[in-house]
Amino acid sequence: MSRRAEQDVPGLVERARAGEARAVARLISLVEDESPLLREVMAALAPHTGNAQVIGITGSPGVGKSTSTNALVSELRASGKRVGVLAVDPSSPFSGGALLGDRVRMQDHALDRDVYIRSMASRGHLGGLAWTTPQALRVLDAAGCDVILVETVGVGQSEVEIAGLADTTMVLLAPGMGDGIQAAKAGILEIGDLYVVNKADRDGAEQVRRDLRSMLALAERPEGAWRPPILMTVAQKGEGLPEVVAAIDDHRSWLDSSGELARRRSRRARDEIEAIAVTALRSRWGDVHGRSELDELATAVVAGRTDPYAAADELLATFTD
Amino acid sequence: MSRRAEQDVPGLVERARAGEARAVARLISLVEDESPLLREVMAALAPHTGNAQVIGITGSPGVGKSTSTNALVSELRASGKRVGVLAVDPSSPFSGGALLGDRVRMQDHALDRDVYIRSMASRGHLGGLAWTTPQALRVLDAAGCDVILVETVGVGQSEVEIAGLADTTMVLLAPGMGDGIQAAKAGILEIGDLYVVNKADRDGAEQVRRDLRSMLALAERPEGAWRPPILMTVAQKGEGLPEVVAAIDDHRSWLDSSGELARRRSRRARDEIEAIAVTALRSRWGDVHGRSELDELATAVVAGRTDPYAAADELLATFTD
Repeated sequence: MSRRAEQDVPGLVERARAGEARAVARLISLVEDESPLLREVMAALAPHTGNAQVIGITGSPGVGKSTSTNALVSELRASGKRVGVLAVDPSSPFSGGALLGDRVRMQDHALDRDVYIRSMASRGHLGGLAWTTPQALRVLDAAGCDVILVETVGVGQSEVEIAGLADTTMVLLAPGMGDGIQAAKAGILEIGDLYVVNKADRDGAEQVRRDLRSMLALAERPEGAWRPPILMTVAQKGEGLPEVVAAIDDHRSWLDSSGELARRRSRRARDEIEAIAVTALRSRWGDVHGRSELDELATAVVAGRTDPYAAADELLATFTD
Repeated sequence: MSRRAEQDVPGLVERARAGEARAVARLISLVEDESPLLREVMAALAPHTGNAQVIGITGSPGVGKSTSTNALVSELRASGKRVGVLAVDPSSPFSGGALLGDRVRMQDHALDRDVYIRSMASRGHLGGLAWTTPQALRVLDAAGCDVILVETVGVGQSEVEIAGLADTTMVLLAPGMGDGIQAAKAGILEIGDLYVVNKADRDGAEQVRRDLRSMLALAERPEGAWRPPILMTVAQKGEGLPEVVAAIDDHRSWLDSSGELARRRSRRARDEIEAIAVTALRSRWGDVHGRSELDELATAVVAGRTDPYAAADELLATFTD
């Protein structure tokens, strides 16, 4: 693509909508690079978004997330769906590049033009998933993906964040990855719309299911609430995947009929708008008169001359009054 | 404590400074509850802060964080230091209460009045550690703790956050917890000021040290930069703890002589001021005229009538112009 073509936002958007992988790649790179063109890109994409179903896939390292994602792509492709995959590594704001180690396993689909696969690092301090991932989702959505799988590395905060981004959150577990209490610690019991015990042919898989079932049974769920199913898979062999796709479809039907889909998407848009607004403000107050207002205030707080609340008031007064 | 005494901020601060555990507990509860009294509390604490050394302790579930924290407290107490412990569970913004499961192990120190131990949940969506933990640190700092240990559950984002909060970040590993690639994924190689291989009497501990050493050797460190040491402990038996304390002291000397302590503390204050300012703004734009401005904008974004950038502009224009 020529330099000029790369800067031609309406052209890029048109080609991405026509399914041209290079145009999609270029738009996602603009997102990753926090390009000044992003405003124009997002404005051009807006009318074409809202169709894709977003599935978050999370779980501790070692449960088989990449293999499961790969198997799920095959299953979805078999039913003729266009599929996007975003593999996000939110754990390291420092490295500035996604770890591509196990991406190679996804090469099964490398030649399928109805599958778009991309690894992303989520950079930035405050941003995390909140910043780049929703924008990349918009690109894939406008590019005509029916389903987008968002796979995150790691546990902890990232799981909670993925739950905020996805229509359906799938939590993967596997035998031998630590006991139930550890699972509870990671907060996974509160975010899953469906639970998948992978490596179901290994010792202990049945125990994981039993533990999970008893823990999920403790949660109070109001009448009409979704009750997360527990599925068993051997992703490596493709076993159990049709049942996973059926459960995803069930959840989608419930999302539609309960009004929860609209609520989740509205919440996602709120978070996205806020992240952009906050970032804009941070850049305003972070860089004024050479040395920043915020730096001066931080120095005063460190010295005990003022407290963080008074400093925050001062900061806001400078920029919002 | 009477209701009146609980509201008497100058009195509470005075009693906390005198080392009264109940006053310290009450002040931290005000932090956890996001009490409207916090502004007054933080203003009263400000002149008495800046003395405590903050040590972050992180690592995957199962490496022995609680046991190590416990052993470290014993070691620090032996040298006469007043010690505060904050155990933060950042993984679940939903539960609204820290998981107290393994806190019981800390009971060794329950009767020592120069040790203050507290479990905290870090609530809130945007806040995470950024919001409550620094304020709790201010309370313990003003209450005369020489050292404050901040222990976080989980891996991923929380580790990066703890590195932002602490003067010295200690990363715990243990044999049998997954291979080196997994460690790299969790981003721990970028945040540790010291690395501790716990359960050093188990098979594989030496291998963990070797792997870690080779991975750390890959990092480019400029002349004069701190080179994170790797220490071996058996926290359960208190083995290796004097060496950990010595390494913490070495790192503190380096922090002082290099000017890095001032930089880290300034960055911490910046983050804290920003978190408070952003939260104040969010509450302004989240709740105006009954239905919020932000909700309206989110609905327009979901419908594809506008894009998140244009919506963020509109939001900021409403509140900052």
